[in-house]
Amino acid sequence: MSFPLTPGAEGLRARLFHIIFESDTPGAKAFDIALIVAILLSVAVILLGSVEIYAERYGHIFFYIEWAFTLLFSLELLVRLYCLERPTVYLKSFYGVVDVIAIIPTWLVLLMPGAHALVMVRILRVLRIFRILRLMEFVGEGRLLLDALKRSLRQILLFFSSILMVVTLFAALMYTIESPESGFTSIPMSIYWAIVSITTVGYGDIVPTTSLGKAITVILMLIGYSIIAVPTGVFSAQVIRSIREDRYSEEACPGCGHDRHEKRARYCLRCGTWLDENSEDPRKKAHKESSDDETPSEDK
Amino acid sequence: MSFPLTPGAEGLRARLFHIIFESDTPGAKAFDIALIVAILLSVAVILLGSVEIYAERYGHIFFYIEWAFTLLFSLELLVRLYCLERPTVYLKSFYGVVDVIAIIPTWLVLLMPGAHALVMVRILRVLRIFRILRLMEFVGEGRLLLDALKRSLRQILLFFSSILMVVTLFAALMYTIESPESGFTSIPMSIYWAIVSITTVGYGDIVPTTSLGKAITVILMLIGYSIIAVPTGVFSAQVIRSIREDRYSEEACPGCGHDRHEKRARYCLRCGTWLDENSEDPRKKAHKESSDDETPSEDK
Amino acid sequence: MSFPLTPGAEGLRARLFHIIFESDTPGAKAFDIALIVAILLSVAVILLGSVEIYAERYGHIFFYIEWAFTLLFSLELLVRLYCLERPTVYLKSFYGVVDVIAIIPTWLVLLMPGAHALVMVRILRVLRIFRILRLMEFVGEGRLLLDALKRSLRQILLFFSSILMVVTLFAALMYTIESPESGFTSIPMSIYWAIVSITTVGYGDIVPTTSLGKAITVILMLIGYSIIAVPTGVFSAQVIRSIREDRYSEEACPGCGHDRHEKRARYCLRCGTWLDENSEDPRKKAHKESSDDETPSEDK
Amino acid sequence: MSFPLTPGAEGLRARLFHIIFESDTPGAKAFDIALIVAILLSVAVILLGSVEIYAERYGHIFFYIEWAFTLLFSLELLVRLYCLERPTVYLKSFYGVVDVIAIIPTWLVLLMPGAHALVMVRILRVLRIFRILRLMEFVGEGRLLLDALKRSLRQILLFFSSILMVVTLFAALMYTIESPESGFTSIPMSIYWAIVSITTVGYGDIVPTTSLGKAITVILMLIGYSIIAVPTGVFSAQVIRSIREDRYSEEACPGCGHDRHEKRARYCLRCGTWLDENSEDPRKKAHKESSDDETPSEDK
Repeated sequence: MSFPLTPGAEGLRARLFHIIFESDTPGAKAFDIALIVAILLSVAVILLGSVEIYAERYGHIFFYIEWAFTLLFSLELLVRLYCLERPTVYLKSFYGVVDVIAIIPTWLVLLMPGAHALVMVRILRVLRIFRILRLMEFVGEGRLLLDALKRSLRQILLFFSSILMVVTLFAALMYTIESPESGFTSIPMSIYWAIVSITTVGYGDIVPTTSLGKAITVILMLIGYSIIAVPTGVFSAQVIRSIREDRYSEEACPGCGHDRHEKRARYCLRCGTWLDENSEDPRKKAHKESSDDETPSEDK
Repeated sequence: MSFPLTPGAEGLRARLFHIIFESDTPGAKAFDIALIVAILLSVAVILLGSVEIYAERYGHIFFYIEWAFTLLFSLELLVRLYCLERPTVYLKSFYGVVDVIAIIPTWLVLLMPGAHALVMVRILRVLRIFRILRLMEFVGEGRLLLDALKRSLRQILLFFSSILMVVTLFAALMYTIESPESGFTSIPMSIYWAIVSITTVGYGDIVPTTSLGKAITVILMLIGYSIIAVPTGVFSAQVIRSIREDRYSEEACPGCGHDRHEKRARYCLRCGTWLDENSEDPRKKAHKESSDDETPSEDK
Repeated sequence: MSFPLTPGAEGLRARLFHIIFESDTPGAKAFDIALIVAILLSVAVILLGSVEIYAERYGHIFFYIEWAFTLLFSLELLVRLYCLERPTVYLKSFYGVVDVIAIIPTWLVLLMPGAHALVMVRILRVLRIFRILRLMEFVGEGRLLLDALKRSLRQILLFFSSILMVVTLFAALMYTIESPESGFTSIPMSIYWAIVSITTVGYGDIVPTTSLGKAITVILMLIGYSIIAVPTGVFSAQVIRSIREDRYSEEACPGCGHDRHEKRARYCLRCGTWLDENSEDPRKKAHKESSDDETPSEDK
Repeated sequence: MSFPLTPGAEGLRARLFHIIFESDTPGAKAFDIALIVAILLSVAVILLGSVEIYAERYGHIFFYIEWAFTLLFSLELLVRLYCLERPTVYLKSFYGVVDVIAIIPTWLVLLMPGAHALVMVRILRVLRIFRILRLMEFVGEGRLLLDALKRSLRQILLFFSSILMVVTLFAALMYTIESPESGFTSIPMSIYWAIVSITTVGYGDIVPTTSLGKAITVILMLIGYSIIAVPTGVFSAQVIRSIREDRYSEEACPGCGHDRHEKRARYCLRCGTWLDENSEDPRKKAHKESSDDETPSEDK
């Protein structure tokens, strides 16, 4: 989604707009890089700030750095809004919301320091990286992936609901077999264990102790180990399809209605009709000149 | 499989049938959603009921809720049977059995409370979700997956029997090498360990202690890590095939017997024979009118 | 590989041969199933025999059962050799060696009981299952898989040697960083840890304790998590190729030398030459009869 | 990259060059094998030397062996440089740097023994194996893989940056939920845990203890379990593409500009133009001789 510049914007405003919202000029590129660095730094500060020893030693420094970044991002947001024709529209957009989320909590934290729980909200600013990804033309790739995901979505949903059923049944089974001492204190806990096992994570915090339990676990693990082939296979197939279809145009042939031609095709590959209506069929001319001579139309 | 409505059923009965057994009317859709919610809720109650602290505090509430759901499902089943022409046929079908299984145990549990072991049977009602999946047109996807699975079944069977042989041999080897103290108390136990390792689950409850044991473990893990490519590769290939064949009709060309035409093909792509017997070949007409003029038949 | 029956073998001998070495008659099928059951049972006995409590309680029974199976397999081997023209050839073949291995150790064990180490050799009889797989026409599937494996072998070798290099470097790095207390007592031990990590097994018996070590581990795990895509991708591609090529004949077209025709193709799909030299080209006849009428040859 | 031999090099020098830098003569092959054995042995010595018990017992032997290998590799490097026209160019190349790295540290270590930290640098000599891989014609395979990797690189980058965002968010969430006692002492630590979980490694050194934490972990594990399908699918698709394109030539057809012909194609598969300019189109002749007779050009 793009946001229009205020029409008839004077020099400064227009220049700011191009720098902030586009990425084709050197200035804009520099701004993007500066921005992503700033985001990563501010995230790094939050991460380090959560480490006790660093917090004790450099707590106050982090505090000032965070102040700086908050002011920086606030300023940036203000400039963004200043450039745009309809700021409110932007604020309601995904990127607008992320921008606000990236700022507000820090203000709160700075006003009432030590709001431990807010770290979660503050970290949300990593989402701003998506903007940069967008600018870095990763969108094309992303679209292809999303396209394939959309196609395989229902199959993967089916796959997951089946997994969850299997997991629930195995969990209930283990709950009845294993003793609570070995960690299977309830069905939800057993479900946690079953998912740890079927996803092949295997923490080992809950482990079967009875022989029967181990036998069932073996089955569950083999299911988890082999069933991963299903989403992978489905998704591979869909990616391949997406790549292939990228090569084909959607227009049907006027002659035979065949509608899977490579984009650069000039003749229908089924009935040979001339597809490109902008130019004339060379075979026509060829025919006028010579009829006994070898012409492409008869070759094929 | 579908179940016929009693022929000449009066208004109410017919209406109930459409609501319960179909999903194309708003009423039917609402019913499906209500049903799936009810199923999930009743499963949730069972799960929570297995957590001690909740059981102690809200045990009696869960008891009443379970009563309610049991009555609800029983009523639903009765209505289903009431709608159908041959109820017994339905009861013998997969969905019928699941419906009964979803009800009976609860009755037993309610009559003799605290039957801990029955939780396994009670949880079986999650299987009812399959019905909803069916209604949600997931069947198409499912068929495609099953189609691919059927195709790769023998290869995957071969894959598994090979894995089990490898696992057995490694297990016996580790049993002879490792000391019982480190958990390899018997070959079955070693097999459990070997599968935990080859599936990359790696609980860590049994772990090699000797250098030789560790060396063998390394080999086993590398096998498990790379061998997963086999079922995945096979399955991917089969899914791709299923998708592709979905595009082709099975009817052979009367001209040359070629039988892999796209469903929308009108000419045989090998010998050019007209495939659609419902309409007439445009080339015929074209020929009558003009023989020197460029006709699709000669283009190609 | 197949083994010839003694030529001019009298009734009994020939009948035995067909039952034992083939699997197309009911008798032969029954024999196969009986054999596989016997093999699995004898393996099961070995497995259970390694469990202490069972060994104590039913040790003597296992002893007798093993006697029985050993005699049975010995008898079977003798009959096999009796049927064949050149027994020695068979004994030198893979299946012959497996058959002998499946018997000898048990004799040794029975003569000097409690030879703990020999369990490894005794278990080798599971390999006999391969014979059954062969009879069950799994070979076709197996060939396809092996075909694809052979094709991707070098890439997968390259993949593995790269992994081992990465693993060695990471192991040496962790050995220098982590303290021996946390398990990194030597580079070989670190390599064991690195492989446990890169294969996503993650026992947790050796775990990084320093921050730097954890950071490096993160990189190693991400490598292991994503690099699995390489063998899978390569193998998938090769399986797809194998399946596709299965559809094509290797004979080149006499007209244009194109050599990728579907096995059921009758005309060369590039230059239209008639491929099946056993029958005559219908177009020829068609031409004789009528030249202005629509003929397949001109359609295409 | 290849390095030229000093022009007009006399016998010995030329012979050495062919033996060391090529691998088509028996002598060269022998040298390669000897070299790879030497490299592997010297690496093995380093590995064993890091094991305490071996170091104590055979420390001095390892010391001498290392001396031997160092002298050997130094000699080899000198000979290489002696053969080449521009030694400095070689020394600046990847292989040259690796060769030097493989020698220098050992010299240092031998002069100041027990430089524990240097083991990391010494192990770098495993990189020399790449040279052998190159000689073993693995390059072709490697190129195909790298080609596919390059193609899927951006998608996999996108994939990783998304994973890291997910991981950061989950880590921050768990840090706020879980107590430091259970290991979530800081966000970086939680990130370590999140990656251990999402990559399905699952050491189990840090594990959620609260119910809410376990619920979130379940989501994270399911994400990690299914998301692996993305890079695998992308990469599979790209490998398949690389293999396919390997079959096609890049030259466009002079007739219709179609530029995806199989390398062995002789006619353009879209417009039938003759592609091989070295020989003459057989259809031409066919036409001269007979016009009513069946000619390939009209067949198709």
